[in-house]
Amino acid sequence: MSLTIPALANKLAGLQSSAIRDLLKLTTRDDVISLAGGLPDGALMPRDRIALAAETALRDPAVLQYTESSGWPALREVIAARASAEIGRTVAVAEVFITHGSQQALSLLAEVLLDPGALVIVEDPAYIGALQVFRAAGARIVAVPLDSEGMRLDILEDLLAAGERPAVVHTVATFHNPGGVTLASERRRRLAKLAEEYGFWVIEDDPYGELWFDQPAPAPVASYSPQVIRLSSVSKILSPALRVGWLIAPERVCRAVELLKQGADLCGSSLTQQITADLLTDTPWLAAHIDSIRATYGTRARALTTALRATFADRLHCTDPTGGMFIWAEFTDDTNTSTLLTTALNAGVAYVPGAAFAVTNTADSSLRLCFTTSDEDTLTDAVTRLAEASRV
Amino acid sequence: MSLTIPALANKLAGLQSSAIRDLLKLTTRDDVISLAGGLPDGALMPRDRIALAAETALRDPAVLQYTESSGWPALREVIAARASAEIGRTVAVAEVFITHGSQQALSLLAEVLLDPGALVIVEDPAYIGALQVFRAAGARIVAVPLDSEGMRLDILEDLLAAGERPAVVHTVATFHNPGGVTLASERRRRLAKLAEEYGFWVIEDDPYGELWFDQPAPAPVASYSPQVIRLSSVSKILSPALRVGWLIAPERVCRAVELLKQGADLCGSSLTQQITADLLTDTPWLAAHIDSIRATYGTRARALTTALRATFADRLHCTDPTGGMFIWAEFTDDTNTSTLLTTALNAGVAYVPGAAFAVTNTADSSLRLCFTTSDEDTLTDAVTRLAEASRV
Repeated sequence: MSLTIPALANKLAGLQSSAIRDLLKLTTRDDVISLAGGLPDGALMPRDRIALAAETALRDPAVLQYTESSGWPALREVIAARASAEIGRTVAVAEVFITHGSQQALSLLAEVLLDPGALVIVEDPAYIGALQVFRAAGARIVAVPLDSEGMRLDILEDLLAAGERPAVVHTVATFHNPGGVTLASERRRRLAKLAEEYGFWVIEDDPYGELWFDQPAPAPVASYSPQVIRLSSVSKILSPALRVGWLIAPERVCRAVELLKQGADLCGSSLTQQITADLLTDTPWLAAHIDSIRATYGTRARALTTALRATFADRLHCTDPTGGMFIWAEFTDDTNTSTLLTTALNAGVAYVPGAAFAVTNTADSSLRLCFTTSDEDTLTDAVTRLAEASRV
Repeated sequence: MSLTIPALANKLAGLQSSAIRDLLKLTTRDDVISLAGGLPDGALMPRDRIALAAETALRDPAVLQYTESSGWPALREVIAARASAEIGRTVAVAEVFITHGSQQALSLLAEVLLDPGALVIVEDPAYIGALQVFRAAGARIVAVPLDSEGMRLDILEDLLAAGERPAVVHTVATFHNPGGVTLASERRRRLAKLAEEYGFWVIEDDPYGELWFDQPAPAPVASYSPQVIRLSSVSKILSPALRVGWLIAPERVCRAVELLKQGADLCGSSLTQQITADLLTDTPWLAAHIDSIRATYGTRARALTTALRATFADRLHCTDPTGGMFIWAEFTDDTNTSTLLTTALNAGVAYVPGAAFAVTNTADSSLRLCFTTSDEDTLTDAVTRLAEASRV
């Protein structure tokens, strides 16, 4: 008898291999400058410091054994202390749950918080990894557009007033991927208030918050309500290979996540979690390390926007990056960025068309540009190539 | 408005925190000899060799970056080569998918292979981690008992003849946890044949196969049919903290698993996967290392069975361990091992009552004893304490 894979027909029907991943496969040619990726710069990862931490960690036999599903206790303590400082109240260790990157926090939370058909509100354009998770959970997804101050809360309020009752509102409030914008302070307060008024959870997905250029981002949405579950990771400040992310949530949510984590993969790695705890507690070193990433990314971001504005003038609007890894740009003429991509690749430059991140809006004239892994000259060169490709 | 966690009411209803985990919390008192755990011996984990591999790996910046969802390419190649030798045909790299421990392989496969309500056949007693996953997937679970030669295939055949049509049959064919037995060679061939005849997948869950004492286990079930998906990990031979497991399956299954892995946690750790690849390719060292675990566990297993038989004689039957980490024992009188546990803890010894692993049968007089983390004298002492506790 021939064998079927039911999930191929059912559960996976709404999923596709990430458009970004497929694109990345096409853009690794040596003659292409890729601004399509979404990777932190490997050259800025603290290899020597990680090697030292690994050596130290491996003096303790306990780092080779299984650890608790909720995470290596020393790491949970550091994260609790850091989260307390970030959100301005004491976060208990029981409110900290370590995950295999913050993507796992998202996927476990979706299982815990969503029944099939539950309403999830996302931003438009949206973080693709979140869309994948919410679609796989069978959620009904409604998108709220971004403007220069982040999620359009007036539109969220209209939806609520019209009777929509989300179980979860997902936001990348700080240095949005792909949108490049940051939710304004007043909107953060309002969003938290709406969560309490209407009884929904907010998932504040914050992998980029530490990567500010000139001044820190506004206080987290989570600082305004315990109904905001905060997600972050060390992937963008230390290394993705540590696979250390976490969620900060009420204890009953953490306990539900724990049950699912046991079935999903038992526990994380004591070794990489101890390495992470070591680096996060070495505060003078950490501060200097993150400062150097900020300075480098800030310089690159400015080089990219400067070149874009000098080259395209009014033909292209782009965000003013204040942190993070991405610029979102939009052609003001009818340029279709999906169509343009082939020409751009021939001209030796790659980006991700806005359509890849679009939920309700089409974003056909938009594109996401990642400035983290190219130096200033290369970024300027990339813009020249893009101009050449888009010459009408 | 107050907030609900739907999963607490629904998806988690069938799940409980693992009985073993809860027990472990009670059995860590210094005055208790715990045979209740299921951990490999930390003292036998190759700490220095892992430290050396970490140092070497960290000379390459690529080990700090994100890796492919299917795994670090060098590791997939080593696993493909090892799997080819194990199952006696060439396994392509595309048939190897690296997971975060083999528990993640199980949970992703359950999502890929099972629609809600699908029938899964498990062994009785069963590996609790598998039960958790299949219950969470909403499967209908039917159990087939073990005897001294592993799963009772005559009973499986009766079920199939009666019209039962499983989507998946799950087996820990080698050195069963908790049952201690190994599926006989002829039954392996028959099971694979039934899979092809009736069109079901077999998941051959094999974390212990390398831990044989006197002679290698029979050829894997997977050597008889491509409808057998083979799972293993390095947790029991190197270290669970590497969080490296894998599945060997037809390419279309691996591709479906890849889509789910992207949503679940993006990818594994390049760092721990490169460390693992290093250790698995250092074949003379690896052979000597695994030999020393075999010798130690073999000596401990024999000490435990010798003490049990000398102390309890006909009152307790126990398996003859030929590998792995566990002995399964059964009182031949009416001793209830769940009731006995409290007395046993007072006498200073812990085990897991059979009821914790029971699916259909009750296993009220059975118990699982783990011999990996205690030396011979301690194991003998544990048996004396158990005898004291169970004195009628």
